Amino acid sequence: MRFEVLHTCKQSGARVGRIYTDHGVIDTPCFMPVGTKATVKGLNPEEVKATGAQIVLSNTYHLYLRPGHELIEKAGGLHKFMNWDGAILTDSGGFQVFSLSSLRKISDEGMEFNSFIDGSRHFFSPEKSIAVQRALGSDIVMAFDELTAPEISHEKARDAMERTLRWLDRCAAQPLKSHQTLFPIIQGNMFADLRRESALRSIPYATCGIAIGGLSVGETAEKMYEMLDVLQPLLPPDMPHYLMGVGTADYIVEGVARGVDMFDCVLPTRIARNGTAMVKQGFLTIRNQPFAEDFTPIDPDCDCYACRNYTRAYIRHLIKADEINGGRLLSVHNLRFLARLTADIRKAIFEDRFLDFKREFLAQYEG
Amino acid sequence: MRFEVLHTCKQSGARVGRIYTDHGVIDTPCFMPVGTKATVKGLNPEEVKATGAQIVLSNTYHLYLRPGHELIEKAGGLHKFMNWDGAILTDSGGFQVFSLSSLRKISDEGMEFNSFIDGSRHFFSPEKSIAVQRALGSDIVMAFDELTAPEISHEKARDAMERTLRWLDRCAAQPLKSHQTLFPIIQGNMFADLRRESALRSIPYATCGIAIGGLSVGETAEKMYEMLDVLQPLLPPDMPHYLMGVGTADYIVEGVARGVDMFDCVLPTRIARNGTAMVKQGFLTIRNQPFAEDFTPIDPDCDCYACRNYTRAYIRHLIKADEINGGRLLSVHNLRFLARLTADIRKAIFEDRFLDFKREFLAQYEG
Repeated sequence: MRFEVLHTCKQSGARVGRIYTDHGVIDTPCFMPVGTKATVKGLNPEEVKATGAQIVLSNTYHLYLRPGHELIEKAGGLHKFMNWDGAILTDSGGFQVFSLSSLRKISDEGMEFNSFIDGSRHFFSPEKSIAVQRALGSDIVMAFDELTAPEISHEKARDAMERTLRWLDRCAAQPLKSHQTLFPIIQGNMFADLRRESALRSIPYATCGIAIGGLSVGETAEKMYEMLDVLQPLLPPDMPHYLMGVGTADYIVEGVARGVDMFDCVLPTRIARNGTAMVKQGFLTIRNQPFAEDFTPIDPDCDCYACRNYTRAYIRHLIKADEINGGRLLSVHNLRFLARLTADIRKAIFEDRFLDFKREFLAQYEG
Repeated sequence: MRFEVLHTCKQSGARVGRIYTDHGVIDTPCFMPVGTKATVKGLNPEEVKATGAQIVLSNTYHLYLRPGHELIEKAGGLHKFMNWDGAILTDSGGFQVFSLSSLRKISDEGMEFNSFIDGSRHFFSPEKSIAVQRALGSDIVMAFDELTAPEISHEKARDAMERTLRWLDRCAAQPLKSHQTLFPIIQGNMFADLRRESALRSIPYATCGIAIGGLSVGETAEKMYEMLDVLQPLLPPDMPHYLMGVGTADYIVEGVARGVDMFDCVLPTRIARNGTAMVKQGFLTIRNQPFAEDFTPIDPDCDCYACRNYTRAYIRHLIKADEINGGRLLSVHNLRFLARLTADIRKAIFEDRFLDFKREFLAQYEG
């Protein structure tokens, strides 16, 4: 894997880059659709690709539990199993153990947790997480980290950060397949000194990219931007910077302004299934009554499959009737919205007017 | 609308035909996928068309209740609303009132029933059913009929048949759009004399097609075939014969042998969503354990999108994980299976060997 910065905006630190992987090129800044269980919910790979996505994210935790990483390895790896020939990033499972599993027990050795499927007991260590991701064969492998909730003490945040760093050292010692690259994850909760320290001590482990974890977990937007501001001058300029779990338009624009190159989030497809479209003004709750007889597209300026072929009234009907295609059409639209947003961002950076773009974009954005 | 018989099999009464509509040609014998609520569950129109379908069925009862036929008429009609440029057949609502609505009250005037959505009280008459179908703008409009359960008395079956005939007379008196055609529905429960009488008294109302209703509702296969045998010599040879609610391979093959040209059923897509594939041998329960590590396609001889790109193991994983795409892939396969079956049937008829085809097909079919 290789990263190339094509242009850095003269108005800001925002960069346009390109990641070269064995499964194609990724133009950055980019948004990565989430396909938790080896499928972006409801969409064929061709539909995902048609939105402009070049990389999808999948989840080690879910795939380890079902259908199992050995099965996927036997199938020829995750790309072949799910029929996606673009790039894949797998997260390490740390976040899912934190957010989905009850009765988790964390020690230096790793995390013990209950399966969200049947309650059975499992154990993840840094070694185990990397072994699973090696079996899956993703292009970008995430380090196994300990996530912490906002508003914990400095001491607890330091403990978790130190553990994450010890785990990173163990992750880095594990073998990967030749096309795979390990991304360390910077933690440190909401403490500037810990974030700084975590970055400086993680960077030596980064070969082609680095991630910022533990943000967008309940803290204010200002706090998140503050942490990104702390990190921006420290991050290696010759590597992509991945802000984990962020996928609303305003956060993406603010993140890019702070040197972030990669984003992912379940939100765009999750709110789609609940009947909400992403537009330049924020969110459009298509399932609401005002759209019942609205025979215009979700967004007349959008070139996605849904906007070219269907009306708000029809999509609302599908959502109200619990028809799968409602969420599918909105998922296509929301992913295309973010692909167009990141394409617009790249264009603005190339033209050295990203701060103007950001100001104009946020002026119309109501969230 | 116009129907043309291209060939009648010298071995049997089976026919190959072609229906010409304002929304394209339909090769018969054909299977019509069901898109109850103005969408074939989970599939884009392009995906439905790619399976080979030339006509879909939609439901007057459901669309009248939600989103409402006036809304669909305002949208430019059902074809435009759901983005399907092929032909559409709408059923009359009689069957759905019978099968979905509690507290229905049937009189000569029509049927009073409770909405399956909110329990609100509604009334369907022959005039109302046709008015709704006119607003929807389907190509084939079904007469409003009274369905009866198997094992009722001859007297009750005659009463319902007589009512259906009176309703047919009222349906036929209603105006339609110029591209629309009304199909009468032959009833008469499981009584040969009533079926005969219903056919003879319905045929004068048929302008371009006729349907057989009230079969495949719980009676034995033998009883259904017996009723079809009674009807076959009576049905107008220059019109398509539509056997309502039938969609398994064996019934289709047996129906074609008895002069049936059109079929529809929710079964192929419903069992798909439950994890079952249709194959020449019958049904393959992909969700079962034996397929967990089966890295072959559903059917190696099938040319559908699912079989060209995915393994049984992957589809099983999606079904087990409640991922929409599992049911979507199996829906595509099952619809393609029936489109290939009817194409094979047409070929065998053209080659005057349909009875041989039928014998060979049923010999391997285990149901």
